[in-house]
Amino acid sequence: MTTAKLQTALLGATGYAGFELARLLLKHPKVATPLFLARAGEVAGKQLQEFYPELGPGGLNNGPEYPLEPFDWDLLKRRAVKVLFLATPHELSRELVPQALAEGIRVVDLSGAWRLKAEANRAVYGFTDADAALAAKLDAEAVYGLPELNRKEIAGARLVANPGCYATSVIVPLAPLVKAGLVDRKRGVVCDCKSGVSGAGKKPTQKTHFVEVADNFSAYSVFGHRHTGEILEQAGLDDDELTFTPHLLPIPRGILSTIYVSLARTAAATEIEAVLRGAYPEGGFVRVYGHKHLPQLRYSLHTNFCDVGFELARDGRRLTIVSCLDNLMKGAAGQALQNMNVMLGWSEKEGLA
Amino acid sequence: MTTAKLQTALLGATGYAGFELARLLLKHPKVATPLFLARAGEVAGKQLQEFYPELGPGGLNNGPEYPLEPFDWDLLKRRAVKVLFLATPHELSRELVPQALAEGIRVVDLSGAWRLKAEANRAVYGFTDADAALAAKLDAEAVYGLPELNRKEIAGARLVANPGCYATSVIVPLAPLVKAGLVDRKRGVVCDCKSGVSGAGKKPTQKTHFVEVADNFSAYSVFGHRHTGEILEQAGLDDDELTFTPHLLPIPRGILSTIYVSLARTAAATEIEAVLRGAYPEGGFVRVYGHKHLPQLRYSLHTNFCDVGFELARDGRRLTIVSCLDNLMKGAAGQALQNMNVMLGWSEKEGLA
Amino acid sequence: MTTAKLQTALLGATGYAGFELARLLLKHPKVATPLFLARAGEVAGKQLQEFYPELGPGGLNNGPEYPLEPFDWDLLKRRAVKVLFLATPHELSRELVPQALAEGIRVVDLSGAWRLKAEANRAVYGFTDADAALAAKLDAEAVYGLPELNRKEIAGARLVANPGCYATSVIVPLAPLVKAGLVDRKRGVVCDCKSGVSGAGKKPTQKTHFVEVADNFSAYSVFGHRHTGEILEQAGLDDDELTFTPHLLPIPRGILSTIYVSLARTAAATEIEAVLRGAYPEGGFVRVYGHKHLPQLRYSLHTNFCDVGFELARDGRRLTIVSCLDNLMKGAAGQALQNMNVMLGWSEKEGLA
Amino acid sequence: MTTAKLQTALLGATGYAGFELARLLLKHPKVATPLFLARAGEVAGKQLQEFYPELGPGGLNNGPEYPLEPFDWDLLKRRAVKVLFLATPHELSRELVPQALAEGIRVVDLSGAWRLKAEANRAVYGFTDADAALAAKLDAEAVYGLPELNRKEIAGARLVANPGCYATSVIVPLAPLVKAGLVDRKRGVVCDCKSGVSGAGKKPTQKTHFVEVADNFSAYSVFGHRHTGEILEQAGLDDDELTFTPHLLPIPRGILSTIYVSLARTAAATEIEAVLRGAYPEGGFVRVYGHKHLPQLRYSLHTNFCDVGFELARDGRRLTIVSCLDNLMKGAAGQALQNMNVMLGWSEKEGLA
Repeated sequence: MTTAKLQTALLGATGYAGFELARLLLKHPKVATPLFLARAGEVAGKQLQEFYPELGPGGLNNGPEYPLEPFDWDLLKRRAVKVLFLATPHELSRELVPQALAEGIRVVDLSGAWRLKAEANRAVYGFTDADAALAAKLDAEAVYGLPELNRKEIAGARLVANPGCYATSVIVPLAPLVKAGLVDRKRGVVCDCKSGVSGAGKKPTQKTHFVEVADNFSAYSVFGHRHTGEILEQAGLDDDELTFTPHLLPIPRGILSTIYVSLARTAAATEIEAVLRGAYPEGGFVRVYGHKHLPQLRYSLHTNFCDVGFELARDGRRLTIVSCLDNLMKGAAGQALQNMNVMLGWSEKEGLA
Repeated sequence: MTTAKLQTALLGATGYAGFELARLLLKHPKVATPLFLARAGEVAGKQLQEFYPELGPGGLNNGPEYPLEPFDWDLLKRRAVKVLFLATPHELSRELVPQALAEGIRVVDLSGAWRLKAEANRAVYGFTDADAALAAKLDAEAVYGLPELNRKEIAGARLVANPGCYATSVIVPLAPLVKAGLVDRKRGVVCDCKSGVSGAGKKPTQKTHFVEVADNFSAYSVFGHRHTGEILEQAGLDDDELTFTPHLLPIPRGILSTIYVSLARTAAATEIEAVLRGAYPEGGFVRVYGHKHLPQLRYSLHTNFCDVGFELARDGRRLTIVSCLDNLMKGAAGQALQNMNVMLGWSEKEGLA
Repeated sequence: MTTAKLQTALLGATGYAGFELARLLLKHPKVATPLFLARAGEVAGKQLQEFYPELGPGGLNNGPEYPLEPFDWDLLKRRAVKVLFLATPHELSRELVPQALAEGIRVVDLSGAWRLKAEANRAVYGFTDADAALAAKLDAEAVYGLPELNRKEIAGARLVANPGCYATSVIVPLAPLVKAGLVDRKRGVVCDCKSGVSGAGKKPTQKTHFVEVADNFSAYSVFGHRHTGEILEQAGLDDDELTFTPHLLPIPRGILSTIYVSLARTAAATEIEAVLRGAYPEGGFVRVYGHKHLPQLRYSLHTNFCDVGFELARDGRRLTIVSCLDNLMKGAAGQALQNMNVMLGWSEKEGLA
Repeated sequence: MTTAKLQTALLGATGYAGFELARLLLKHPKVATPLFLARAGEVAGKQLQEFYPELGPGGLNNGPEYPLEPFDWDLLKRRAVKVLFLATPHELSRELVPQALAEGIRVVDLSGAWRLKAEANRAVYGFTDADAALAAKLDAEAVYGLPELNRKEIAGARLVANPGCYATSVIVPLAPLVKAGLVDRKRGVVCDCKSGVSGAGKKPTQKTHFVEVADNFSAYSVFGHRHTGEILEQAGLDDDELTFTPHLLPIPRGILSTIYVSLARTAAATEIEAVLRGAYPEGGFVRVYGHKHLPQLRYSLHTNFCDVGFELARDGRRLTIVSCLDNLMKGAAGQALQNMNVMLGWSEKEGLA
């Protein structure tokens, strides 16, 4: 007996994270060719290949075609879409999610729209919801889609908020250490994070012009990046306990975060390592390189791994953690696929090995 | 009934092409974990992960291990190796291949050792063979492993000479056009080829130092590159009909070749396209983008595709072809795997999709 | 006795070539601080430092200021501007030059507006001139500003058309060889040219997005680039004798052109070298590296040099030339300054050493 | 009356910092062509142009020559060398400096040999001096060559220890803040520093291979980098008050340091800015961009500037500083030239404008 493949839909396949997700979905053994959606008047009616010719010559030349169809609720129903991926601006996600859930379609949202529980943290986005009460209910219902931390909640969720790329790289190593009481929160945690340019999106701007980025390096959004709230909520820190600085690396993709922690008490490296290995068993998508084995950014490129290593000062109190991931994979599309796998009770690695 | 997986061995997994092949073999559904070999006194005894930590923490940290075992014919016999991949210097390939064949082991050789039929073309390598008569017999027997051109010969071969990276990018578009009589050979073919740095090997040299390559671009081996002979023999040109200039691109991987052909007669773009499509049907590893659809280098990165497009001058006589591939995939390891698939009668795309 | 410094004006200092020129003018010992101009409604009223903070903190922080003043003929008169540099779109240059000359202001134009003598070659730009007769007169009067070829004409010129970057890199080595009768024009000259991204301008586009360019390489404008006409006219070739292919290099600046010439007769390398050295004596801005000494792209970065080297095939008939320059210097701003020096009878190297 | 130009000598011109210094010395208006020295048996007897063809065709082609002469004390005397620059390994500097001073030659040493006052800090280098007592005297005598902090001592010095590149980027912003009592040293200072690859030297290694560095980013020497001692001594911190992490950026040159300070008391941004501006007046080589004006790495490339900007958290207690410089200029050769200018009582900007 063959099981029918899952019908998914993806809105926003022309962006970098969206296209990465499109490629993953096209290769996933249990997923049918996704319905690629676009908002009318934009790219709708074109082929995904016009934006990403690496898919092959296609169309005219007798290759496969991947039409971008205008977004339309009837179409989603006709095609019996079960899971909708939103790789869209957060305002649009706020607008679309209530109806999707009403239609019985589960959602994995890659924007920042549904990640935050505290209203104070949401303020930075300035959401203006048509139905504020419903939005508040959904804010409460939405599950933060970091499977290594919230696997059980994701399994049953209708709405999964896929984490931010920087946030994932910081929360993964930090959350278990805070939980274990090893972090002296009063002394503050410094997260010095560096990301490749695809994290800034596909829309061309002065900031992403090749000549501005190449041979250059810069800090930005100091004390003001939108991922701050996620990190606070998921790692379990208070506002003034976190100093988070994003930087722009002159590379296309990848994040490396250097995280500086003062320990609450003198600890041995083996203890730190045991906490991390306890949280992330061998064989999952978090790879603990361990003490004095620092991952480099490229180790996780084009994979869904988050790699973690650390060094402990001789005083046993100052801990420097290095954490790496591919911002388009574990930082976006890969994690979205992983979330889908968990939601459907499939093996978490399906389509990601 | 389950079929036993194929036992392969790989000598040279620590180089860039060798490691790419190691990764492909580790994921190939019909291949057992390969025997990774190294020459004693070098890297033998270490783990492949010490050279490529992207394989995961491994070893100490309870992950999988990939030992590099000292090369030894008894070991190959004990492990019943059926196919031996050589990602080694050409002198070493000349030395090892005769015995491998004598032991009944089929060989895919990634070096330049066995690619050339004409003695004059081999001169550039300066081979010094222990048994010259045997070497000459094997030179004649070796099959040039470009499956799109020599599929049938590869299927039965004991010894497949995997093509050079530049050579593949040039021969793929050129050979069918020469064969079709469209090329005015007398006027000469110009191949202006550009390669990423991994083509220069993993050994650190002044030439591959980051500071020398970054923000730079240069031509090298003008009128003297070793791939010239392969191109002449396989594309069907005489010595003074080919001008081939390699250049070093400041990127890690990928080749783009711009090929300038004077047509033997006025032709329409459709005719050129028909010849190329006839040689390379849809669904294979050569993707014909066609007239006025030029592939970019990145389209084929991390794939086994060779992409081809072209433009024809208004005079219908001057043809400019652009051809791209990943030098570590279709230009080395991917093609080696493809050759193994053909040798064993498997689907050509097995492990390469 | 002190001579008053020259008053210049520069329209378009916010673009890449314009800013390079601004920096050169600010350091030129015989030139007063230039009048930086902008078209009203755009950037006028801002400081150049807002676009290029590398000039220093400036403004608010007590550093020097470089205001961008609205373009206005009265202002140019009041400030007694003697030389006007136009780093503007070609349409705007066509519009402004007639009046500038009428006001007695000499012009160095960095756009393609006034470079072409043959109407057929100008067609590609599609100029629509208010006064076509006057425009035609100025087309005839304008001097092509390659000082190494047209020094005498530039000295007395009112209007100097600064050459294209690709064109300079090709004309410099090619013109003397054609003039010496060494080029077999019938067999065609192939110019395979590669440029850094600043050549595409500062306006952000999909094509110049970091993620599209990095790790990539591509050909563009095959058989259709606007510099073709300049090369034909200045090198002395007919339309179907030149095949010119531009490519985009993943680096911020610099051009390397590989030029393939069939010689009209067998020649020795010394003869080729003598022709080049004869055309470009030691100590000027063309550096002849000579036979088997190929320049690399980075040798000329941040300088006004055009570097030339070559290799000759053993048959003495096939010549491969490599020519390099910095597209913002010898390919634009540096050459514009050199032209100004020649126009004013100053040492050609003033402000460029 | 013309003053004779200064005769200098430079040992180590073939390295990256050495060559940058060679270029600066060749352009310095008050300095004669330097004596370029090399250790016998190495590169002695060759031309500097063989290593840096960007100097021009030279030699054979009638251009200028820059011979590398074998190091020899008699030669230094015969040529009446007044200032000796050492761009050498630190062991060699320890060996040569005593004799140079004995010969009455003043020294600017670019290595780490003479930077450290505390024996504990010197331990990391493991110096083995022939005459330990003399070495200790010279350790005490040597002046740390950061002119903005030690101008007066440098003026009269016989031996100037040119600072480390990372150290300069950290000490410049940190020292005045510590001195002003604004830094809560007990809470620790975090210096997250990122450098381009030329900082790792010209010798090719696996670490500096283009393919290893490109598209990558990594931390190294965590809790163990040699510049730590300099920072502690010059910024006025105790050992466990500094956490310093170097990272390798995939660019040829430039350093950006992000420095995290907990203030000793709540302060306003204007107060921080006043301290920095007080320490570094307008017109010098430290440019204070100020509050919310963060420098980017490229602003200082190819200049001798150290650029500083910062942001203060709303709590008025957490300060994030960004500091940038060109590691080959203000981080090495430029600062060495600046030191020479100060030593000789010349304008500090001579040859550096």
